[in-house]
Amino acid sequence: MGKLKVVTLGGGSSYTPELLDGFIKRHKELPVTEYWLVDVEAGKEKLESVGGLIQRMVKKAGINMTVHLTTQRRDALKDADFVTTQIRVGQLDARIQDEKIPLKYGVLGQETTGPGGFMKAQRTIPVLLDVCKDMEELCPDAWLINFTNPAGIVTEAIEKHSAIKSLGICSGANSMMMDVAKTYNVDRKSISARIMGLNHLIFADQIMLDGKDISADFFARLAEGTGNHTLKNVPDLGLPREFVKALNFYPLSYLKYFWLNREMVEKEIEEMNQGGTRGERSKAIEKQLFELYNDPALCEKPKALESRGGAWYSDTACSIISAIYNNKKEIHVVNTLNNGTTRDLPDASVIETNAVIDKQGAHPITYGPLPARVRGLIQSVKAFEELTVEAAVTGNYHTALLALASHPLVPSVIIAEKILNDYLAANRDFLPQFH
Amino acid sequence: MGKLKVVTLGGGSSYTPELLDGFIKRHKELPVTEYWLVDVEAGKEKLESVGGLIQRMVKKAGINMTVHLTTQRRDALKDADFVTTQIRVGQLDARIQDEKIPLKYGVLGQETTGPGGFMKAQRTIPVLLDVCKDMEELCPDAWLINFTNPAGIVTEAIEKHSAIKSLGICSGANSMMMDVAKTYNVDRKSISARIMGLNHLIFADQIMLDGKDISADFFARLAEGTGNHTLKNVPDLGLPREFVKALNFYPLSYLKYFWLNREMVEKEIEEMNQGGTRGERSKAIEKQLFELYNDPALCEKPKALESRGGAWYSDTACSIISAIYNNKKEIHVVNTLNNGTTRDLPDASVIETNAVIDKQGAHPITYGPLPARVRGLIQSVKAFEELTVEAAVTGNYHTALLALASHPLVPSVIIAEKILNDYLAANRDFLPQFH
Amino acid sequence: MGKLKVVTLGGGSSYTPELLDGFIKRHKELPVTEYWLVDVEAGKEKLESVGGLIQRMVKKAGINMTVHLTTQRRDALKDADFVTTQIRVGQLDARIQDEKIPLKYGVLGQETTGPGGFMKAQRTIPVLLDVCKDMEELCPDAWLINFTNPAGIVTEAIEKHSAIKSLGICSGANSMMMDVAKTYNVDRKSISARIMGLNHLIFADQIMLDGKDISADFFARLAEGTGNHTLKNVPDLGLPREFVKALNFYPLSYLKYFWLNREMVEKEIEEMNQGGTRGERSKAIEKQLFELYNDPALCEKPKALESRGGAWYSDTACSIISAIYNNKKEIHVVNTLNNGTTRDLPDASVIETNAVIDKQGAHPITYGPLPARVRGLIQSVKAFEELTVEAAVTGNYHTALLALASHPLVPSVIIAEKILNDYLAANRDFLPQFH
Amino acid sequence: MGKLKVVTLGGGSSYTPELLDGFIKRHKELPVTEYWLVDVEAGKEKLESVGGLIQRMVKKAGINMTVHLTTQRRDALKDADFVTTQIRVGQLDARIQDEKIPLKYGVLGQETTGPGGFMKAQRTIPVLLDVCKDMEELCPDAWLINFTNPAGIVTEAIEKHSAIKSLGICSGANSMMMDVAKTYNVDRKSISARIMGLNHLIFADQIMLDGKDISADFFARLAEGTGNHTLKNVPDLGLPREFVKALNFYPLSYLKYFWLNREMVEKEIEEMNQGGTRGERSKAIEKQLFELYNDPALCEKPKALESRGGAWYSDTACSIISAIYNNKKEIHVVNTLNNGTTRDLPDASVIETNAVIDKQGAHPITYGPLPARVRGLIQSVKAFEELTVEAAVTGNYHTALLALASHPLVPSVIIAEKILNDYLAANRDFLPQFH
Repeated sequence: MGKLKVVTLGGGSSYTPELLDGFIKRHKELPVTEYWLVDVEAGKEKLESVGGLIQRMVKKAGINMTVHLTTQRRDALKDADFVTTQIRVGQLDARIQDEKIPLKYGVLGQETTGPGGFMKAQRTIPVLLDVCKDMEELCPDAWLINFTNPAGIVTEAIEKHSAIKSLGICSGANSMMMDVAKTYNVDRKSISARIMGLNHLIFADQIMLDGKDISADFFARLAEGTGNHTLKNVPDLGLPREFVKALNFYPLSYLKYFWLNREMVEKEIEEMNQGGTRGERSKAIEKQLFELYNDPALCEKPKALESRGGAWYSDTACSIISAIYNNKKEIHVVNTLNNGTTRDLPDASVIETNAVIDKQGAHPITYGPLPARVRGLIQSVKAFEELTVEAAVTGNYHTALLALASHPLVPSVIIAEKILNDYLAANRDFLPQFH
Repeated sequence: MGKLKVVTLGGGSSYTPELLDGFIKRHKELPVTEYWLVDVEAGKEKLESVGGLIQRMVKKAGINMTVHLTTQRRDALKDADFVTTQIRVGQLDARIQDEKIPLKYGVLGQETTGPGGFMKAQRTIPVLLDVCKDMEELCPDAWLINFTNPAGIVTEAIEKHSAIKSLGICSGANSMMMDVAKTYNVDRKSISARIMGLNHLIFADQIMLDGKDISADFFARLAEGTGNHTLKNVPDLGLPREFVKALNFYPLSYLKYFWLNREMVEKEIEEMNQGGTRGERSKAIEKQLFELYNDPALCEKPKALESRGGAWYSDTACSIISAIYNNKKEIHVVNTLNNGTTRDLPDASVIETNAVIDKQGAHPITYGPLPARVRGLIQSVKAFEELTVEAAVTGNYHTALLALASHPLVPSVIIAEKILNDYLAANRDFLPQFH
Repeated sequence: MGKLKVVTLGGGSSYTPELLDGFIKRHKELPVTEYWLVDVEAGKEKLESVGGLIQRMVKKAGINMTVHLTTQRRDALKDADFVTTQIRVGQLDARIQDEKIPLKYGVLGQETTGPGGFMKAQRTIPVLLDVCKDMEELCPDAWLINFTNPAGIVTEAIEKHSAIKSLGICSGANSMMMDVAKTYNVDRKSISARIMGLNHLIFADQIMLDGKDISADFFARLAEGTGNHTLKNVPDLGLPREFVKALNFYPLSYLKYFWLNREMVEKEIEEMNQGGTRGERSKAIEKQLFELYNDPALCEKPKALESRGGAWYSDTACSIISAIYNNKKEIHVVNTLNNGTTRDLPDASVIETNAVIDKQGAHPITYGPLPARVRGLIQSVKAFEELTVEAAVTGNYHTALLALASHPLVPSVIIAEKILNDYLAANRDFLPQFH
Repeated sequence: MGKLKVVTLGGGSSYTPELLDGFIKRHKELPVTEYWLVDVEAGKEKLESVGGLIQRMVKKAGINMTVHLTTQRRDALKDADFVTTQIRVGQLDARIQDEKIPLKYGVLGQETTGPGGFMKAQRTIPVLLDVCKDMEELCPDAWLINFTNPAGIVTEAIEKHSAIKSLGICSGANSMMMDVAKTYNVDRKSISARIMGLNHLIFADQIMLDGKDISADFFARLAEGTGNHTLKNVPDLGLPREFVKALNFYPLSYLKYFWLNREMVEKEIEEMNQGGTRGERSKAIEKQLFELYNDPALCEKPKALESRGGAWYSDTACSIISAIYNNKKEIHVVNTLNNGTTRDLPDASVIETNAVIDKQGAHPITYGPLPARVRGLIQSVKAFEELTVEAAVTGNYHTALLALASHPLVPSVIIAEKILNDYLAANRDFLPQFH
């Protein structure tokens, strides 16, 4: 077995130990020989902290893997086989701004959906397209496995503006299937479903337990259990019971940002005023994590990491990388080009969908028309995403305004304009394309 | 020249004199010989009032046209050539409820867009499908020219559930072109444009003055004039200037319900609390109109009628009827089946679009893909419309809930459920399909 | 009224007097002030011959139009308003080769359909794309009205590889409608129909006489009259009666090359062996025409010209030019981009279809799906056309082979290869792109 | 493990021992407990002959499987889990007619492609739709695995006119992949490819050896080896080398009926005049096989059976049945509904394509647009197939004529009519729908 070089951009992220944990567990089938963690100058301290832990974990595992820490991206990318990204341009402080500015106007403050997702995309896309340019030169056959949010939008930018092979990854679908498995007290592997939509906007039907369709039963449990937690192990969607009955599919929990928009905005404002926004709380958690990481006695991923929900990310990412590496022809849910998978979205769109994964990448399974009850929402978010990508690439103010104005959670173009102006002012350093 | 029989359902509407005025003006090219006004028992008084005026107008015009008033719809439909509809199931009182119930929850109260359009469709579609059944028996070759709002949704129901030839009509596009004509101080006939969308959700580009493309100039004037009334004759969209610049097309003013949703809701609540909702004000105006109509000395349409904006309706309707009758092959904007006109909406959808009108009806002009900056909005409203039609035909509570929940102006499914329940309770008498 | 400059490329064609005749008749609505005839050096003699007649015709008509003859294309194109093309690269001798080579292998020898159309496209497309380049520089706003065969293929090349506004024109649809008019002894203007397909591969249904659908009656007459000439004035399709009944639409007579392929090939071989191919006979007719044209006493188009069937071309071309010039919004059948007019062909394809013609060009009328009974044929010819355009632009031997091999009238790829090799050898001087 | 009941309609076919051989080999993963062979009264002798062998084979294998022979279809279908079909309505004599009638007119005589496929479909579809009706009553959840040719057309009829779950199966793709494996001297399982088209009209690209793209190398070998057998193990397409180079994909050998039509017809006529048509030769082989089967000492499938090429059929069928039964999520090539897999064919079409097979059936992998060099051919055959299904279901003479006339290998509608009339006369007993 030869070299297998994996590079993680944003290697200083507190999630990295999760990812490494996945590589360690799978080392037999996915024998990573070189693991490079890359971060920017501003993240050097975190890189060294997390890097230290990584090195101790590898040592303890006793596997054949060298670990490299660097702020020189191009050194790392040279001849890489897989490049994973989990970057956060502007760090958590930028995220906190992304959340707070729309909340000021009574608009959702969330980092992947709504204005926050728009803003994160504006900062992130130029950086990742630069990465792609480097890859085209230094490792043109490598796979770019993109965890960076908003994963669907970012992957669409890469598909439209780069020749690098890429997939966008999210743990959402995996978590949904895990929740079904818990409901029936079976192994995750026994559960499968038809899954379709956009990143953070997917829904599942044709839910199977070992190939037997349990959809009707599961949807009935969903409706019965919703909003009152009385049913053990049934995921609680927090939606009105009659609405869940009407849906007749299983939505990702992120859909609540659309379906309970008014209530979620109220809740976010309350949280901001009390414990701080989600970003502020993450910052606190992260601080604690890095304290743990700095402990030279720690040589496995700490329990506390689970509180950030990273386990599924790691599992999703590693199993997809392994499916590519081993030409497994397994079905996974990924962000990839539509190309006719559903006719209700443009061909050049990136969708999140079931696809067969093999050495050549993702081969989506034909879906056909979307059901009307979720079609409009998905289509309107896709139009927003398309404009968001265009704005991020061109730096055109008007395109940016149209993007924000077309988001279904932005209640007026006057407010869109205010949010945009505040955002551009607050992110000046990260938006060369607009200046 | 033989018989030409026109029937107006909802003949007791205060708009009827406008329509007759159009028939009188065009009597040479469109020699209506029989004009039947039909209304329900509850509208008999208005029918007689407006019918009296109609008879006096015909007499004064000295044309060969007999006028018939009846509450027996089937008598009127027998051998009709054109049937126009302007019915209002539940009268203005139902409209006022449609407006007030959503406003209670801070949601748009408007009779064609948002929850109001949904509710009006639930009352209206069953009645119009009954009309179609009568027509299939009594005048299967007649044209149904539908003015009844929500015109696009109602026409989609007819296209999907009846074999009767029908077109949905709205004066919106005509008014837009008139506004362009005023801007350049030219005749309306000199102006044309590419127009696309859904009823009350259209936009125009490729604006031509005698075939010369004046789009860039007109859009610049729109942007300059907006929001400040300083430019004489330029339509004021009331939208932020940069947004108008970004749009690069000319939207129907109804788009403000989506683009200025928060502001419009606030304004409507204020109006409701002061002068009453639009429906309440219409009721007052109507009362005055009928007082005028009852004056036996009046034998032409009164000036006051213009305040309800009916002139364009009359012109739009009569010119389309004449284009059919005379096989004119003129281009008009109508509500008709998509059938591939734009791939971004389902084939079986009704769209509002430029179409060649001849004796065989509407032949839409190919449009291709919608621009992203309005595509998502149109697609999400279309999904709402599709569910609305299905709910009106099946009377299925869950479908109705999904319809309301999927409207882009409804901010949460919890609120959708409340509005629906209030609506169903308030409209019990008009919703046989739900009981 | 200002300047209106029209340029005819291939001005030395014997058809030019027809075209001029059309301009003279319409001089009031289409006041051509400058008419430039352009031809290549090799066609100078013909140019002068036909040019002389043109000048005498203009003089006799007493209209305000100057006539210019030149072999300097760029001089003519400068500031042109309309450019019409009727070029024949390689003259009639090349056509005769196009016909004879496939006949050698028992394959259709026809100049627009089958291998002949392929070969003519290879010679013609590079020249017309050069013309377009000149136009982009010298008259970027001019309309290119392309009569040059194969009109659909050539127009597709221009649409795909040039920014010049263009339409492809054929008299076929006009002749079909004239034949319907003759059947009912009415004016051509009373007849209209839905027409769809590709150039020389169209069919008509929804046939209207003053807006009344006479399709069923006309199709019955077609079936009754076919093959035996017994019905006066009914077009004889020469197809089996039951097949005509089955068709239930009205096909262009060119369809016989596909539906009677075996018989047509036999007939062509017989004709070749007796009176010569169609090209050889055209050459003889042309010789006679030029003798007439050289007569200084002739100052109108000679009767004999009609034997080449050019009258409909002239009428079709002039009425379309006038529809553009006068922003008429009339419906004409033209070759223009599909763009979704029918989903059964690629968007970037050129189709022949009903379109509204105004100052901005052609706006096709939405068609929807093609009927299965002609869909396959049209789709397979379109695939051939697409490959033919690509071969003409790239000069790629393999693409050319695939084009010929995919034509439904070529019975084997072995024969396709032989025809291609013979063609390339015989046309060496006209195919710079292949060398 | 409970009951697993498999029924084979046309059980008296000489192929049945192959199929059983497959079931025996896979008995661990696919434990068939009841195997029913059904045939019509006229096939009773063959049924008993082959049934005897089957029983001896099962006995020798020592597996837990009961074998039932019956001419009472409904008895067999009751509670079946899988129903396979390999019926031949009219036996081999009908096939021989199917071949000889078109050859009389110089048209391809082949049992699945061209007129022969049309005729076989007319006899077969009504019978299989009757089977489906029985299944809807007796085993509504069973899978219908259809081997009966023309497999694609027959499966389209079932998809359009029955609710039974069905897949059409053909060994072609499997054989192609085996040929690639032989070329590289690797195991069949190491090879995969993207495969698309219609039954007997598929092509492969993106050919992978353990996930590595070997397409360029393989296509080069194909071109080098073609027509001269000099390259060991490379499949010989018998096509001109330059054409194979131009193709840049790997076509099923059946494509030669289209690409070498003239040559194949000549060859078939020669064969008919010498050794007899393929059907006649099959009849002779079959006679020999049944003599072997009647030998009570034979208790395994005889070597001679391989000469009919059935091994791949058995393998294809059994592995697909096992993939369903065991919910394997493996990729197989099957005939199933398009539903958007490629936009170049109607949604309701059956295509032959890569699909993930699990307990719920086939989930095709998104393909997108077809390449132009094979698109036209596939589309024109699909239009023929669509008309063929419609004719078989309605028994409409005109539809049948349009179907035959639209086949790309039928050189004129006059000949189509002659073939159709001869066919209808010769098959009178098997075509209740036409009488």
